[in-house]
Amino acid sequence: MTPSLTRSLLTERHRPTLERATSALRERGHWSAYSDNPRDYAREEGAAAFDSLTGRRFELDQPGTGDWVGAEVSPYGPTLGISYPRPDPEVLLPAMRAALPAWRDAGPEVRALVCVEILTRLAARTAELAHAVMHTTGQGYAMALQAGGPNALDRGLEAVASALVEQTRHPAATEWTRPRGRHEPLRVTSTLTPAPRGVALLVGCRTFPTWNGYPGLFASLATGNPVLVKPHPRAVLPLALTVATAREALAEAGFDPQLVALAAEGDGEHSARTLALREDVRIIDFTGSAAFGDWLEENAGQARVYTEKSGVNTVLLDSTGDYRGLLANLAFSLSLYSGQMCTTPQNLLIPRDGIETDEGPKGFDEVVSDLAGAVDGLLGDDRRAAGLLGAVADPGVLSRIAAAEETGEVALTSREFAHPEFPEGRVRTPLLVRLDARQPGVERTLLAEWFGPVSFAVAVDSTAEALALLRRTLRERGALTVLGHTTSEEVENELVAVCLDERAQLSLNLTGGVYVNQTAAFADYHGSGGNPAGNAALVDGAFVATRFHWAQVRRPA
Amino acid sequence: MTPSLTRSLLTERHRPTLERATSALRERGHWSAYSDNPRDYAREEGAAAFDSLTGRRFELDQPGTGDWVGAEVSPYGPTLGISYPRPDPEVLLPAMRAALPAWRDAGPEVRALVCVEILTRLAARTAELAHAVMHTTGQGYAMALQAGGPNALDRGLEAVASALVEQTRHPAATEWTRPRGRHEPLRVTSTLTPAPRGVALLVGCRTFPTWNGYPGLFASLATGNPVLVKPHPRAVLPLALTVATAREALAEAGFDPQLVALAAEGDGEHSARTLALREDVRIIDFTGSAAFGDWLEENAGQARVYTEKSGVNTVLLDSTGDYRGLLANLAFSLSLYSGQMCTTPQNLLIPRDGIETDEGPKGFDEVVSDLAGAVDGLLGDDRRAAGLLGAVADPGVLSRIAAAEETGEVALTSREFAHPEFPEGRVRTPLLVRLDARQPGVERTLLAEWFGPVSFAVAVDSTAEALALLRRTLRERGALTVLGHTTSEEVENELVAVCLDERAQLSLNLTGGVYVNQTAAFADYHGSGGNPAGNAALVDGAFVATRFHWAQVRRPA
Repeated sequence: MTPSLTRSLLTERHRPTLERATSALRERGHWSAYSDNPRDYAREEGAAAFDSLTGRRFELDQPGTGDWVGAEVSPYGPTLGISYPRPDPEVLLPAMRAALPAWRDAGPEVRALVCVEILTRLAARTAELAHAVMHTTGQGYAMALQAGGPNALDRGLEAVASALVEQTRHPAATEWTRPRGRHEPLRVTSTLTPAPRGVALLVGCRTFPTWNGYPGLFASLATGNPVLVKPHPRAVLPLALTVATAREALAEAGFDPQLVALAAEGDGEHSARTLALREDVRIIDFTGSAAFGDWLEENAGQARVYTEKSGVNTVLLDSTGDYRGLLANLAFSLSLYSGQMCTTPQNLLIPRDGIETDEGPKGFDEVVSDLAGAVDGLLGDDRRAAGLLGAVADPGVLSRIAAAEETGEVALTSREFAHPEFPEGRVRTPLLVRLDARQPGVERTLLAEWFGPVSFAVAVDSTAEALALLRRTLRERGALTVLGHTTSEEVENELVAVCLDERAQLSLNLTGGVYVNQTAAFADYHGSGGNPAGNAALVDGAFVATRFHWAQVRRPA
Repeated sequence: MTPSLTRSLLTERHRPTLERATSALRERGHWSAYSDNPRDYAREEGAAAFDSLTGRRFELDQPGTGDWVGAEVSPYGPTLGISYPRPDPEVLLPAMRAALPAWRDAGPEVRALVCVEILTRLAARTAELAHAVMHTTGQGYAMALQAGGPNALDRGLEAVASALVEQTRHPAATEWTRPRGRHEPLRVTSTLTPAPRGVALLVGCRTFPTWNGYPGLFASLATGNPVLVKPHPRAVLPLALTVATAREALAEAGFDPQLVALAAEGDGEHSARTLALREDVRIIDFTGSAAFGDWLEENAGQARVYTEKSGVNTVLLDSTGDYRGLLANLAFSLSLYSGQMCTTPQNLLIPRDGIETDEGPKGFDEVVSDLAGAVDGLLGDDRRAAGLLGAVADPGVLSRIAAAEETGEVALTSREFAHPEFPEGRVRTPLLVRLDARQPGVERTLLAEWFGPVSFAVAVDSTAEALALLRRTLRERGALTVLGHTTSEEVENELVAVCLDERAQLSLNLTGGVYVNQTAAFADYHGSGGNPAGNAALVDGAFVATRFHWAQVRRPA
């Protein structure tokens, strides 16, 4: 049967996108293939599509389907009532392995084109995906749409383009001619083929199933590896939609849909722990807790393991030329999605003697209360606040807030209020606690990750002490982000040196519409892979180059 | 003090080499920066330089030098009598770490230029290095010169060029401008800096200290990491010369010579085992036994570990259009350096009904005796044979030959004879043993690596059985090389498929002057990194991209 998606059709449709993506990778300026303006998407149609998925089975027609599982409850209240196939890995994984050779033999260009086709189809389902992300992660609708849709697709496309560049570094066939004086030259022809490692396992996370999942999914697929997607049991739908879309596109392009499959699991089953150790799982992508990420890195020796784990993100305040801008920018970063981002600042280090600003010197107390005020102002209107904060995904966050309140003096109370639209939604505003670096034992608090809307305003003796604490935090716990505010060239140089030494991503003096907890595909690296917060960066050369091996066949010419 | 090697001087000298190397990487045709014609080098001067090093201390002026150690004995007989500084890692490693920031801040271009300066200085010492390699590894002079000198330098340059390409994928500074309709666009400037991981440990091997050592050494150094070189205690001198040369060049270029240091050890000390687990060792390159390589991969979790371990190399004979060429080519591959190459063929799979050739059908017995005859012919003259075979490096090889003789019927006896020039040298010709794949328990023999001049001519039922045994061997033990001889397109396709599936490097129908156990830098990958014989390939993108991390600093424009 001739596939309906032929190579020439795919080339016509997607070659320009791939070329643009490849040049964006090189230039690293602003570029996005997908609009992230919510007004460009039909919210109501997305809601209807989402509604039609709830309360029923999500069919995927995978081999080895055993029972059906599903326990998703929206952080906004409603139970989703969707059940997904739970596969028997002894049946599904061999089927996935069997799909590999034809996909490998199609070559990097065709794989990239098919991947872009999948991304394009996902883009067409953006509003539907937005609802799925919203009602599994608790993100507000606008954020669920942007981060869960176009921004995630951009990261996926970045991975596809990176993989294509890496696999086409040199020709697929070469000639080698070595002169030998009066003798005939030696001549060899070679084929150089990217040979995939084998089945990749994607272990999805609760808070950003698509944004954190697409890079690994598409990097593995574009380099020839089948991908088994094991979503977080409370955030299955966004990845199930992704898998279904990928399977359709693969089949229409003439490939085995088993190249992408879903491994749903029962609640509390922890199937990632057994899947990850299977000899036939050769790649693992994971976003989540340091404990499980460390376990994977230590135990899944048969696989290449890519982790983004928890870190402790620091803000260092030394001085600023735009005090109001600093407060507004930081207040937004603390509030967005109730701090449930791996990039949300946690420890705000402020000299106890205060900081220099364009409004004159500001004491420690003043800075803390001004920041608390800025958050209060930002979240003054419940409807607007609810959209920004979203809902708390994991009830564990609530007890973490309670525990954090006990660590010091509360400077800003975490407020709970009824979501205007979803009265059952768990909405919480940021908590800000005052600590002093001199307090005995305070390191225990500061060197732990308090995932959720928890931040500490920490009085330090000096900027030098803040730099030392930053260095220690980065070395021992790692970080996804560091933010610094200073007008001093010397302090800036020291901040840069610490972040280079400890391989952390630094943002300086953000006072406008760019936030420390957001990165842009094609321009910004997310994580570095070089500190304890994770061993992978989105999307650097190592992220794709390590997912395949070069297989060479030499023949005398 | 102004360094005598300025950036402009280095640029003038080495920029053209780097450019040529970079284009060679892309094209993957024949190219070498260094002549490997022994006649281009002054053998006697090299011998004199080597002699002047023996019987004394090898001074390196490293911090933390404790006692002096050394127990090198040439496989050709003479004791070298050289002692090397054994460092205290508690002193040396902090000094190396302290050297990192300035080397990092110099940037990828300067690092690459300095690396080429080091390679150029090593090239000027080629004849001296050749003697050092010869009298530690047991290689014949010509091979020690070629493989230990120019071919090793080529691999080093390949690593430098790859590292430069990887670190200059995009500009070091970028601008990001996001339009926002009627609002001012968002503008961010970024710096993107390759941030090295930390101290790299190179664990050298006995048989190819420079060829197997230079890729990791130069890949780490070019990406900003200081390198601690821990040579095999019986093959220190080639790497000590390398370290001394690197330190001189680094110092003259204004960098801290501690960026490259030697960690000699006492005999039986096994210092790699403790160094490898140090928290400040962040990269490890290792060539050697599967046992220690596996141990490193499993235990040195704080480091990125690059291994080339032992494998089992297979030759599959199905049919040939040049029987004499096949025999001559294979006889050479079995004989070169007495089979002490990780790339030497071990299991020769031959259908028991024989093979089709241009000289008509040849039975199994005939093929085996013809191959034995070809080896005998090649090694008929003792002087020539001694040059080709070299000496046996590790006495363990001798007992391995004895054990192999017990596994089946000896088709070609491993002959011992006095080296014409060095009567104490251990010279051994290849052993060829006949086995049958039907023999019970024969897999134990075939699936073990018999490092040294040991090969098995294995009768198999059919080419199909040979392919199955090849696949099993690759999957369970891995291989650095696979050689196939066939005139059948179908068999060729099946061979290619097996090697792609198991990620092994395949050579087909070699009958002339290209040998399965030799690879050329810039054109051929050595290993794939994707089968159990090792996790690294020389030199693919993964080999360099994983040695540094991108550190980004964002600033609002």
